[in-house]
This record gives sequence, structure tokens and C-alpha cells, in this order.
Amino acid sequence: MAKVPSHIISVDWGTSSFRANLADASGASLAEIRGGQGALNLRPGEHEPYLAAHLAEWRVAHPDAQVVASGMVGARQGWVEAPYAPCPAGVGEIAAAMKIVVSPTLGEVRIAPGVSTLDARGAPDVMRGEETQILGALAASGAGDGLFVLPGTHSKWARVRSGRIVGFETYMTGEVFAVLKDHSVLGRMMTPSAPETTSAGFALGLDAAAALDRPGDLLHAIFMARTFGLFERVAPEQLSEYLSGLLIGAEILAGAKGAREATVIGGAALAERYRRAGAHLGATLTPAPENCATLGQIALIAAT
Amino acid sequence: MAKVPSHIISVDWGTSSFRANLADASGASLAEIRGGQGALNLRPGEHEPYLAAHLAEWRVAHPDAQVVASGMVGARQGWVEAPYAPCPAGVGEIAAAMKIVVSPTLGEVRIAPGVSTLDARGAPDVMRGEETQILGALAASGAGDGLFVLPGTHSKWARVRSGRIVGFETYMTGEVFAVLKDHSVLGRMMTPSAPETTSAGFALGLDAAAALDRPGDLLHAIFMARTFGLFERVAPEQLSEYLSGLLIGAEILAGAKGAREATVIGGAALAERYRRAGAHLGATLTPAPENCATLGQIALIAAT
Repeated sequence: MAKVPSHIISVDWGTSSFRANLADASGASLAEIRGGQGALNLRPGEHEPYLAAHLAEWRVAHPDAQVVASGMVGARQGWVEAPYAPCPAGVGEIAAAMKIVVSPTLGEVRIAPGVSTLDARGAPDVMRGEETQILGALAASGAGDGLFVLPGTHSKWARVRSGRIVGFETYMTGEVFAVLKDHSVLGRMMTPSAPETTSAGFALGLDAAAALDRPGDLLHAIFMARTFGLFERVAPEQLSEYLSGLLIGAEILAGAKGAREATVIGGAALAERYRRAGAHLGATLTPAPENCATLGQIALIAAT
Repeated sequence: MAKVPSHIISVDWGTSSFRANLADASGASLAEIRGGQGALNLRPGEHEPYLAAHLAEWRVAHPDAQVVASGMVGARQGWVEAPYAPCPAGVGEIAAAMKIVVSPTLGEVRIAPGVSTLDARGAPDVMRGEETQILGALAASGAGDGLFVLPGTHSKWARVRSGRIVGFETYMTGEVFAVLKDHSVLGRMMTPSAPETTSAGFALGLDAAAALDRPGDLLHAIFMARTFGLFERVAPEQLSEYLSGLLIGAEILAGAKGAREATVIGGAALAERYRRAGAHLGATLTPAPENCATLGQIALIAAT
């Protein structure tokens, strides 16, 4: 086990997002950078200079700081490919699959791999970035077993046994919501509203999810975002909340597979939306600390 | 019961499509117009001149021909609103709810209403155009009972008892497919292919639909159109077929509600796609004649 350096430069570099933290060895953030270019928004050759430009100051101030990045930065279309570690994968397997890139300015940069799984029928699924957040949530709680949900564009539900991710599924909830709202007939009747998880529309959507019988009934309940508007059963500013509740509710009921408890890892607003949805449906979704990515990266360094 | 005139000018005027047929009293087409402007693509005041310009020649040749239109032309945003007839609705109720517009050029134009229903929980659903096609299919078969599927952007599954539509549901299958293909991450890996209902991708999607457990699992199976591509389990030109099979399969299993037989009403290619999907899943979907809209309009005229 390597000694964790006194400081870590923690980079959460997704498809279209860039977040960096200068943190101490406990994961507490001393400085942060938000916004910036996603790993897939840059072309080959642009990642190292981009990172160096953003992190040089921290590196100068903390020459011993370890730079660690996780997320789509390690994808084939990212900076340097760090191939998927297959399930079951814990901190040991994931740390062993990290890639090291040597940057002229930053020195060694460690890039976390993703994790892959096969379902009972042999169909593959993948995550990249979420595995590091799960390791962070495990480190924060001290638990070795659990069910984790990482909501978002492509939500993940992952099962952990004895500290290792043993399987997971991706649900396309966030992106299905976005394309229906922005590109289908449903969006035409929706008017903007401040997202409000206590709204009547959200609860109606959750109830509709709980009442679904056959899987294809979801295609009918989605369409009701139109008929509810047409018949003025749901106010225009509540229609997107109905659709959100329906899709998130269906995801939770499928992802939890009857489990009553899970840890939700994500930004505060989305984690709260899932927590409330879970409570409405009888599942306790407990938010993990928001710095799970940094905590997971520290665990990975300690394990190398 | 009115005498059916010797000729009918049959207009199937949907949201974005316009089809007209000059037919004899048996519904056989003597001439046709395809393409043109959808009823919702025209502005108020443009419908009558548009129709007159397209149909004037037929009207001159057959002064006694009755002009009948069905579809979104009768919607609030169409030409003249023909309010929904509530279920249960048969040829009598639907004929009674037709609107008559007098055109300087064409004379009386009859516009069919849509049909509305409420489900067991009081939630509304609507159709407009499909009710006329169902009446046509009933007239063609002589049956008074049955289950009808009208596949498309917004597929309808309707139950008929003693000649009346007693209830139906809309499934957003076609539009969900289109927005995912054109606007989500899934479309990026898909390459064009000639739609081929005997394809391996289509069968894989149908099998995935049959294997779905909870409704939200559909959100996971949709995402597999990406992972199957990423892991080269499905060829790029088969990925859209997988998604099509998955969504159509889920719709059929939900819409049929365990029934083994239904009549499919629609264009030949889509009806064949549904027929094959049904056969794969153990349901016999028998295509209705393609001129159901005209046959239904003739039944409506006879009932006025």
C-alpha cells in the first residue's frame, strides 16, 4: 500500500464536464475549479496542455501532490485509454488497472479505469467514473456491502459485496427525459418551472410508475404527459415534473429490485430528487458525501 | 341511414400527411393523391383553399361525390374542430359527431371527430383518424368484436365490443424510437440499413422485450443499444433494428394484455413489421385492408 501524499489534485473529467479539487489527504477540498471542457470535447493532444494550464498553480504550490483523474478521460475517445476492469472489482483491481501518463508540467497523472460487467444473459454494461465514486462512498461509510445508485443522464445501480462491485445496470433515465422534453411532441405543451421535487406533477409521475403493469406500459404512461396536458389534468408547468417522476420512479423500482435501502451518489439537487422519489415509493435512499470522487481517488492511491 | 353516393372523395388528413382517394361506393380507389401538406402544417384559413385546389377536378367529374375527411384535420389546431366522441363509440355515435363545413368549391365536406376514453384510474386518452380506420376494418371483416392495433408514431391499441370502441391506449413507440435514434447517444453508433424485419437485430430486440421483468427495465434495455454496439455484439447497421424490436415488442406485449389475436391496421411495411413481431412473441396480428380509412368514411356516411 502506497502512502497517500499530503495533497491530492483530484480531477473528475466526464464527457462534457471538468471538475478539479485540490484536497488534503482526508479529501477535504482546499480549492476547486468548476466548469471547463469535457474530456470528449477535446481533440487528441489537447488533454495534457489543457490539464497543465488549469492545474499548474496547484502543482507549483504542492510539488508532492498526486494528480488523479477519473471519468471519460480514460475512455478510448478520451486522453489515454484505461481499459475496463471486469466485475467483481474492488479497490485493488481498479487501482491495478490505472494508467499513468507522464506530463512534462504535472509529472505523473494517474487515470482510473472504468468497470465492466456481464448480466445473467451475457449482455455487457459499463461505467466510467462511477466506480471511483462508489469506492469513495465505501471509504466514507466504512461499509463493505450495499446497493448504490448514481443518478444522471445514464443512471447506474451497482451492487457491492465485501468491498467489490459485483454487478450493475445502466438506466437511460436522464437522457430519455431530455430527448422527450426537447425533441418530442411532449415538450411542446410543457412550460418551464423551477424543478420542485415536492410538486404534484412529480408525485403523480411516481404514482404512475408504481401502477405500471407490463414493461411496455411505460410507453403509454410517457404519452400521458401529453393527454394530461390536453385535458388540463396537469398544469403545463407540472408536465415535465410528471415525466421526471414517471421515469425516475420506474428506474428506482427496477434498479432496487425490491431492496428497501440504497446509497445515492450525486449532486445535491439530483440526490435529493431521488431521495424523495425513493421515500414516496417506500425505499430509503441515503445521500453519500458529495466528494465521493476525491475520496475514491485517495483510496485508489492508497491501494497502489 | 343515408344512401351512400356513387362516389366518395376520401381524405385522410393527418398532422403532417395528406392522402386523398376518389373511390366508388365499395371503397375501391379510382384515383389518388399522395403527399402534400399535413393539416397542422397549414394556418387557419388555408385548409379550404388547399383542399379545393387539390380536389376540384374530381368534384367537377363527379358532382354527386361526397367529400369526407378524417384525422387531425378535425383537431382544435386543424381546420374545423370536431370534438371527441367519448367511448363507447360505434359508427352511430361517431357519425353523429361529424362536422359539416360548406366549401364554395367543394360543397359539403364532412369531418370525422376523434374518440376519447378514460382508463380505470380516470386518465384520458384520445385518437383522431384511427377510429375511422377501425370502423373500416370492422366493415371489411363483418366482425363486431376484436382487438385492433394501429402502429405508428403514437400507436393505438383499441378494444371493440358489439361494433363499438370501448377503450384504447396510446403507446409512444414510434416517436420514442425516432427521438432516441436522432437525438440521443444511441444514434451515434447506428449506421443506416434497409429496414429488414427478419434481421438478427430485430429478433434480439424482441427477445429482450420478452425478457423484461420490471417496467423500468425498459430504460436499461434501451441503453443496451449502446453497449451492444460498444462491445461489438451487434453490428452498427443492426443497432436501430434492436431498438425497434425492443420497443415494438414491449408495446405488443403491453397492448395485447395476453390476447393472442389482433388486427393490425396500417401501411404494408409497418403492418408487416408488427405481424412478424407478433409471430415472434406468440401473437397473431392479421393485417386489415389498406383502404380502411375510406371504408370507415363510407360507413360513416351510410350512418348519417
